[in-house]
Amino acid sequence: MSDDSNSRIVAGLREWIATAQPGARLPSTRTLVARYGASPVTVQKALRTLTSQGVVESRPGVGTFVRAVRVARPHDYGWQTAALGPRKQLPLSSALRTTANDVLALHSGYPAPELLPERLVRAAFTRAARSEAATSRPPAAGVPELQAWFAAELGGAAPAEVTPPAPSDVVVFPGSQSALGTAFRALVGAGEPLVLESPTYWGAILAAAQAGVEVVPVPSGAAGPDPDELARAFERTGARACYAQPNFANPTGARWPAAVGDRVLDIVREHGAFLIEDDWAHDFGITADAVPLAARDDGGHVVYLRSLTKSVSPAVRIAGVVARGPARERILAGTQAESLYVSGMLQAVALDVVTQPGWRTHLRGLRHQLAARRDLLAGAVRTHLPGAHLDVLPAGGLHLWLRLPAPADLPRLARDCEAAGVVVAPGDEWFPAEPTGPYLRLNYSGPNPGAFPDGVRKIAEALAR
Amino acid sequence: MSDDSNSRIVAGLREWIATAQPGARLPSTRTLVARYGASPVTVQKALRTLTSQGVVESRPGVGTFVRAVRVARPHDYGWQTAALGPRKQLPLSSALRTTANDVLALHSGYPAPELLPERLVRAAFTRAARSEAATSRPPAAGVPELQAWFAAELGGAAPAEVTPPAPSDVVVFPGSQSALGTAFRALVGAGEPLVLESPTYWGAILAAAQAGVEVVPVPSGAAGPDPDELARAFERTGARACYAQPNFANPTGARWPAAVGDRVLDIVREHGAFLIEDDWAHDFGITADAVPLAARDDGGHVVYLRSLTKSVSPAVRIAGVVARGPARERILAGTQAESLYVSGMLQAVALDVVTQPGWRTHLRGLRHQLAARRDLLAGAVRTHLPGAHLDVLPAGGLHLWLRLPAPADLPRLARDCEAAGVVVAPGDEWFPAEPTGPYLRLNYSGPNPGAFPDGVRKIAEALAR
Repeated sequence: MSDDSNSRIVAGLREWIATAQPGARLPSTRTLVARYGASPVTVQKALRTLTSQGVVESRPGVGTFVRAVRVARPHDYGWQTAALGPRKQLPLSSALRTTANDVLALHSGYPAPELLPERLVRAAFTRAARSEAATSRPPAAGVPELQAWFAAELGGAAPAEVTPPAPSDVVVFPGSQSALGTAFRALVGAGEPLVLESPTYWGAILAAAQAGVEVVPVPSGAAGPDPDELARAFERTGARACYAQPNFANPTGARWPAAVGDRVLDIVREHGAFLIEDDWAHDFGITADAVPLAARDDGGHVVYLRSLTKSVSPAVRIAGVVARGPARERILAGTQAESLYVSGMLQAVALDVVTQPGWRTHLRGLRHQLAARRDLLAGAVRTHLPGAHLDVLPAGGLHLWLRLPAPADLPRLARDCEAAGVVVAPGDEWFPAEPTGPYLRLNYSGPNPGAFPDGVRKIAEALAR
Repeated sequence: MSDDSNSRIVAGLREWIATAQPGARLPSTRTLVARYGASPVTVQKALRTLTSQGVVESRPGVGTFVRAVRVARPHDYGWQTAALGPRKQLPLSSALRTTANDVLALHSGYPAPELLPERLVRAAFTRAARSEAATSRPPAAGVPELQAWFAAELGGAAPAEVTPPAPSDVVVFPGSQSALGTAFRALVGAGEPLVLESPTYWGAILAAAQAGVEVVPVPSGAAGPDPDELARAFERTGARACYAQPNFANPTGARWPAAVGDRVLDIVREHGAFLIEDDWAHDFGITADAVPLAARDDGGHVVYLRSLTKSVSPAVRIAGVVARGPARERILAGTQAESLYVSGMLQAVALDVVTQPGWRTHLRGLRHQLAARRDLLAGAVRTHLPGAHLDVLPAGGLHLWLRLPAPADLPRLARDCEAAGVVVAPGDEWFPAEPTGPYLRLNYSGPNPGAFPDGVRKIAEALAR
């Protein structure tokens, strides 16, 4: 592969440069072509890489030269301590870590590349590269056709008596994390209460901390939140908003029964409040489909968030928010202040992928693959970790939420697992307050499912220590 | 063009659908191919467009059907008034407006498509579509080679006695607006003072309002800010940060003399403060090059922001922030909380474009084009608006900052200009407090420079009314 030749030439030249004098001239392209048995294009690319790394500089028509590397003085930035003030502790998640290829990664929140519609994504980027999207700026609320698609997706699930959302009710975001931050700022605001399920998505906990809202946790389990506790939380705090994941919740895998959904809708209506519904796993149904609660609301109470980043590609950071009334105007003004507009290229690619006939075919295949992986990992847990408990075998989503048999030192367990070649996510990060038990979240959509049984065995060994 | 056929078929079918019964079956693809004289691919694309608009639905193997359109009930979202509370007035800019093709757009902050390296951008997207970037997730701080490029660009301007920045000092952002918001939150924080030039970039004023920082305006003109006023602002408010544009400031076009830059660096050092340097027009030098103040600081006082969105493509929303010490860690944690990571595809494309030999060639050509356009617009102002005053003929950037000869009703002037086919940006939006005079900002990098003289004549006529 050309990528390998490139790395080889870059590494070789860096070795040569390490012992060369500043200002020394590199061998000519012709000499390097002969030395490395690579094409002139590959050699030129390697030289550009070195230039971008600041190691060499090229003088057109003259040659490429070793740059004078100045010795860095050690600096103490102690003065910044006073300027910055105390740290506002932002919880950072281990689920975002990138890991080496030779470990089994069960910690991540993303599906493996082989579960993505790779062919569709590459074709869409190639098409969009020739279109106007590559050089133009779309409207702040989003590309109209993509707004229409998000509205139609949600509207398609609306019962006959509910007015479906209009395309103009949609605001396109550069990923769901920025949608969460903007929605929390626009609908709640710093110092004001926001009701959250506990446990819930760490990204939402992080966005809430960053927005400075006051988090009000409500217990949530296999059947979603306890509606009585939810009602009490609204009454006690005067909260006017709640964030939740009614379908395939991250991390618990819960899917709210219809009666819970009805109760929650009633509660937010009674309290004149918003439900911020995060339909993160809409495309990851296994034995059930995600049916948004938002489809049953046309009173502007449910603000609906649908992400395409995980199901289309991590490179296509696109999410849509459906909101009605003044709430939509606040959210639009907020996202303009945060990021002006979303790359039209990413919007064009997202729209292209999800409107191809191949997208439906892909989702059908994905369902089978997720089912097989989920069952493989759950089976391995039952075999090798018999004391651990799965509240839910999730009907969709990407994770198992595993309660360990006994109190455990989770950071130590995670370290021991990693030393044995398995990366796991300690469950503590999903609790907005103190964790109520020792949990691990295990992703069954990562690479190398064949290693699941062996991986779970290693977790069991680490746990036994 | 295929885009035209698509629009034609979509429009034709929408007409047909308007009079059809819900559930009616559309004519077969073969019939439509014959009726519209288009290829089956084009017809399929038009049907996908209609599906994404929610007008029809396709049942694979059966056909395409008119969707039942439900009558929308009018809704009053009055309950949201109490839930949302009073509006935090976010100033929105007219500079972001998209306008019709038949008007002369002098209001925008972006260069016309013909001034972009279009060929390089399309080729880079096509290449990246085949690479790993299309389906993978980069590290949170950015693609390492792009970090290295941003560091090398700034380091290349550093004098011998200054330690140049390292690649790890760089954090990649999805555009400079989100970099501003994150930097203001991370380095200043809600309720704390931030010193700004007045006038200054409206996006920075907006980001400051969104971050809830307390704005402290300091007058700034053709020679940059008054250093004595700047020092007094730091002393009086205890501010620990200042945002400024030392090169080709937006809107004034000012380029700080070396002595002013030295004084400002001394002042921020004396006050243990940060200078957030926005080098927005680095690639838009005309008779001078932008020399970043940050290149002369290795004590961590200058936090440097360089954007590629305007010079590469509005679809490639990429900016780099260079910061050292704990400030860099705060900024990285902040951007993770706001957006997790930046699309690796956009990073790969940005890096590809700026490391091509054609990029340098493009920038050289751009310089000449900007010079010609600037002189054309400035000449038209001198001829047709003799009473108006240009403090600076800018040595770089994209705008003229025009002081009108007499007090003017700017909103009315803008409306009258627009009615005559010229869109202008009233200068008020660039003032963090009350505007100190009647200004217009005129962009000379927009489409259709041939119409500049006529456009300025129309402004003069509107002004005479």
